Amino acid sequence: MPTRFQLANAIRALAMDAVQKANSGHPGMPMGMADIAEVLWNDYLSHNPANPQWVNRDRFVVSNGHGSMLLYALLHLTGYDLPMEELQQFRQLHSKTPGHPEHGLTPGVETTTGPLGQGLANAVGMALAEAVLARQFNREGFPIVDHWTYVFAGDGCLMEGISHEACSLAGTLGLNKLVVFYDDNNISIDGEVHGWFRDDTPARFEAYGWQVVRNVDGHNPSEIKRAIETARASADRPTLICCKTIIGFGAPTLQGKEKCHGAPLGEAEIARARAQLEWPYAPFEIPSEIRSGWDARAAGAAREQRWLALLRDYAAAYPAEAAEFERRMKGELPADWPAQVAALLAETRTADTPVATRKASKNVLDRLAPRLPELFGGSADLSESNCTDFKQHQAIGYRSFAGNYVHYGVREFGMAAIMNGIALHGGLIPFGGTFLVFSDYARNALRMAALMKQRAIFVLTHDSIGLGEDGPTHQAVEHLASLRLIPGMHVWRPADPFETAIAWAAAIERKDGPSVLALSRQNLQPQAHDEAHMHDARRGGYVLWQSEDFLQAPAARALILIATGSEVQLAFAAAQRLAAAGRCVRVVSMPCVEVFLAQDAAYRESVLPPQLRRRLAVEAGVSAYWRLFVGLDGDVVGVDRFGESAPAQAVFEYLGVTVDAIVARAEKLLAA
Amino acid sequence: MPTRFQLANAIRALAMDAVQKANSGHPGMPMGMADIAEVLWNDYLSHNPANPQWVNRDRFVVSNGHGSMLLYALLHLTGYDLPMEELQQFRQLHSKTPGHPEHGLTPGVETTTGPLGQGLANAVGMALAEAVLARQFNREGFPIVDHWTYVFAGDGCLMEGISHEACSLAGTLGLNKLVVFYDDNNISIDGEVHGWFRDDTPARFEAYGWQVVRNVDGHNPSEIKRAIETARASADRPTLICCKTIIGFGAPTLQGKEKCHGAPLGEAEIARARAQLEWPYAPFEIPSEIRSGWDARAAGAAREQRWLALLRDYAAAYPAEAAEFERRMKGELPADWPAQVAALLAETRTADTPVATRKASKNVLDRLAPRLPELFGGSADLSESNCTDFKQHQAIGYRSFAGNYVHYGVREFGMAAIMNGIALHGGLIPFGGTFLVFSDYARNALRMAALMKQRAIFVLTHDSIGLGEDGPTHQAVEHLASLRLIPGMHVWRPADPFETAIAWAAAIERKDGPSVLALSRQNLQPQAHDEAHMHDARRGGYVLWQSEDFLQAPAARALILIATGSEVQLAFAAAQRLAAAGRCVRVVSMPCVEVFLAQDAAYRESVLPPQLRRRLAVEAGVSAYWRLFVGLDGDVVGVDRFGESAPAQAVFEYLGVTVDAIVARAEKLLAA
Repeated sequence: MPTRFQLANAIRALAMDAVQKANSGHPGMPMGMADIAEVLWNDYLSHNPANPQWVNRDRFVVSNGHGSMLLYALLHLTGYDLPMEELQQFRQLHSKTPGHPEHGLTPGVETTTGPLGQGLANAVGMALAEAVLARQFNREGFPIVDHWTYVFAGDGCLMEGISHEACSLAGTLGLNKLVVFYDDNNISIDGEVHGWFRDDTPARFEAYGWQVVRNVDGHNPSEIKRAIETARASADRPTLICCKTIIGFGAPTLQGKEKCHGAPLGEAEIARARAQLEWPYAPFEIPSEIRSGWDARAAGAAREQRWLALLRDYAAAYPAEAAEFERRMKGELPADWPAQVAALLAETRTADTPVATRKASKNVLDRLAPRLPELFGGSADLSESNCTDFKQHQAIGYRSFAGNYVHYGVREFGMAAIMNGIALHGGLIPFGGTFLVFSDYARNALRMAALMKQRAIFVLTHDSIGLGEDGPTHQAVEHLASLRLIPGMHVWRPADPFETAIAWAAAIERKDGPSVLALSRQNLQPQAHDEAHMHDARRGGYVLWQSEDFLQAPAARALILIATGSEVQLAFAAAQRLAAAGRCVRVVSMPCVEVFLAQDAAYRESVLPPQLRRRLAVEAGVSAYWRLFVGLDGDVVGVDRFGESAPAQAVFEYLGVTVDAIVARAEKLLAA
Repeated sequence: MPTRFQLANAIRALAMDAVQKANSGHPGMPMGMADIAEVLWNDYLSHNPANPQWVNRDRFVVSNGHGSMLLYALLHLTGYDLPMEELQQFRQLHSKTPGHPEHGLTPGVETTTGPLGQGLANAVGMALAEAVLARQFNREGFPIVDHWTYVFAGDGCLMEGISHEACSLAGTLGLNKLVVFYDDNNISIDGEVHGWFRDDTPARFEAYGWQVVRNVDGHNPSEIKRAIETARASADRPTLICCKTIIGFGAPTLQGKEKCHGAPLGEAEIARARAQLEWPYAPFEIPSEIRSGWDARAAGAAREQRWLALLRDYAAAYPAEAAEFERRMKGELPADWPAQVAALLAETRTADTPVATRKASKNVLDRLAPRLPELFGGSADLSESNCTDFKQHQAIGYRSFAGNYVHYGVREFGMAAIMNGIALHGGLIPFGGTFLVFSDYARNALRMAALMKQRAIFVLTHDSIGLGEDGPTHQAVEHLASLRLIPGMHVWRPADPFETAIAWAAAIERKDGPSVLALSRQNLQPQAHDEAHMHDARRGGYVLWQSEDFLQAPAARALILIATGSEVQLAFAAAQRLAAAGRCVRVVSMPCVEVFLAQDAAYRESVLPPQLRRRLAVEAGVSAYWRLFVGLDGDVVGVDRFGESAPAQAVFEYLGVTVDAIVARAEKLLAA
């Protein structure tokens, strides 16, 4: 029977060999954390390699994602569908072993990591989802939701600010089933960390309310094991296990140095490491006894079978709950969802009282939430401002997981990455609010949601200069355009309650990606919507209104106004004035550019006839993006500067986003 | 003589009254922190109201910037050029009292705050600049740089991740002249913080190596005074003073509640507060004895005079150092700067060895840094990758400030906000590196640099899919465009060593705003540059090459290729092929779109003749932005998706950013 050290060396050898073959990658972390991974995976991790989707598996997150080869080695060795050929194709085009772990590409990769600190925050979200779902679904004798979330994290993760946000909240909530292994190897890319990182990390985490296991020798299996036992005995606190390790452990001349962090060791060093580790096997060769020592397929299948038996008994005792659990974990919406949405749209279509879209959003939530228990909201300390505090919201708190709402605190980045973790876990649809301008703080987590195609909904209110007095630090001007640039992100900016309902419906129905809802602080005049809008508005852009002869007399067409959100009311009013002056005009409302661009050409051209180049876009934000629609012949009424602190109406007037300005610019276009 | 309490109540009254008059704003913080401010400003703060630019003044930063009325009240009362009329115009258009403090608008406002946590990080930068400049310029008996940096911060600031990054680094460096007052009032916008913020904050800061003064009654002047004395006695650690305060102190029914955080108290509550505070004066009335108690003009002028006398003696003893100090604090470049740049450009113009622009950037630094001691570099733990570690770099460290380089650790947001603080302080020109994709982490600090018009230089390497194997988490695709959307940001993406030198020169010469240098990981073929490029390339966009007949035969012009950075070499090669096939083409290199757009129309049209609409932009990033130049008739070879993990060349080929693809797309345009 192989020793633990031999088992761990399989990871080290695969990491050295794959990085060397790719001539690119990070051998240091896998070699340093191999012993920890060996104990965790072989003695504790509850998973089934044959079914990476098993909902009650333990989650394992490599937050220091550059150590991807550790994860690939583990997945390969324990029996996931990740053959040796894939490891040999490390970092090559279309392999399942990219430079950093990518969720959705490689079986068993729970989240995409690499941008430091975010994996840790994702894991907080997973542990939180577990706690909430356990509270919702478990019944006496039926712990159908009952798993751990384990994280590997390095110095880089712990230097990042997001580690503060996420771990402070994890401590506040008492997420005891979260266990983080801190790879305390004293090295980051610039060298020995003491020059730039001298935190007393154990004390820091104790200040967050964590249990901390100090001074674990990360190369001593029995110490590691004892630490994990301590972690698993915690009833009320997450645990940080501080593991002293040697980066690149086993590389005779490079171990303990930053040189082995992110570059191949070189053939000579690898040969010497093989000798030192007493690993006489060829590159990518795993002897069968080592392979057997790692193989987790039988045990994993048995584990899942036991759980399935439990679930069957649960279904017998609690059939409704079991059906609901199945639906929720599949991410499917309730059967009556389409009817709910249809009723909501019918109702909001004829709304005519001025209302802020943030308030309209709350109305939608008040309506939908009772039928959608998976909705799991929150805000980064702006609940009332964001109007995320829907009627039925119930906040979770310290060891109190009966709820559907998180007060995330002033932690935008942490919130967004935690939401990603919740979405990845499954069973809940997270949404979270902050001001649009502070999407900056969370930006890379929004990007990661898009990259991972996760259903996370970012409620970003106070979406322009229209917030008024708080001034330029709080007024988004570049944010709408810049969020639209993130591939796969859907940015909805509704104009009124009807479009707000459409936006929410689309965001909730979208199973393969995140959505932003950009909402106004200020009241907006609802638009008139005919039956056709019920369908067309869902297409992201549609004809809101046009002069009577617009369809009949193509030759007479003068101009198209394109607007979003709070500027739709201005464009509409301007169009009325232009029409009264005899101009043949159309107003296109474009609540979601990305959805509109995804429509077929026939539809797009029916909304924006290609030959009609006199187009005027109106949005209280930077103008450059709108050249995509108006080209060089059109124009944009936008805001190409920072805003001003003043009452909203004064700011709109001073910056020239008014009906008068739109009419003037339109006339100028027509005169050209 | 007025009591301390009466003096503090002047702040409270002005805050209540101004917020009430504006019907908008945040009275809670000023009323809660008034007593602390009174002690600090009246007993300690070294400043001169008549000269807010006095270089040796203490810096005072309101990181919880929503409490702007506290700062405006202090500035008004102590005698800055901020008359009562301005306070009465709180939050009105063009007043000097915007919703959040804005640097450059209001005398005495050291930094623009509101986005939480960043003021604190700015202050770390100010304290760091002070320590570095003191080390550079002070001589025995001549402490010409010798001031404190004081910060007010709230729960929100301390929940934000950036507080972890900045304060961890401040502790690591031992910035003892940094003093932070934590407004521990137990309230944030969502209510009592214990539901979402239960950190043991004193323990947390002790873990960072700070001195912590616990349990100070923030309404007890003698306790506050004792705490400040303790702080000022620290020889080696920054100090956190934890002040227990009551938000909205003095408002009988609202104090201690979140209701008084961000809304007017109402006339009735204000009347009752006046009674409770024994403040019988009318709104905006400050009785003369209170005014005298606050007036800091005489003392401030005397303080500055004493310092000027010291400086005169210093100048007599150390004339060269004094002249250099004066130049540096004015932010002027050395007299030989133009000659240095000219020589550098002449040299790089004829470079022809392939080199990555990140390496070309290091070459520029190696050349310029010895003549530019104000250059103050660093990297967020990627020094070697970013090539920010120029030859003469010398890292500062714990209590060791003889240097010109900071290992910021893995703290992108903290780094950028600290750089802003260094720039605001004056005397140093900060630059700092990370990967372009991780500008996301720092994004709001880049925005703040632009909003504050600060000379901070962000060196963002690995600027596209060209970084290869690290994959989509590390490959910037939307970042170039999205940074260009920030008003006032200059984004340089040079194509070769010559353009890299131009970019650095422009960034250093730009006194009124930040610059991004987006640099390649991979080697690029230098372009041929004639003498005219010495001037034209500085204009942000210029004709790099064109077919012989392009100027002579306008009718024959077929196409303009526009490219940036690593894609210039591709566009050039494609142009050669097109020209060989008889196409009359021009290649425009556009290293900085913003600078190009700022040129006069004649120049812009000379580069991009308006009538020539067949334009093809080439940039390995999202395409939408380029419609600003190519309109609806042109096309873009871009990357409208996330990247792939593979060797760079394979990624470029797979995603269609190749010479072949450019030629094909050009031919398609020509066939249209």
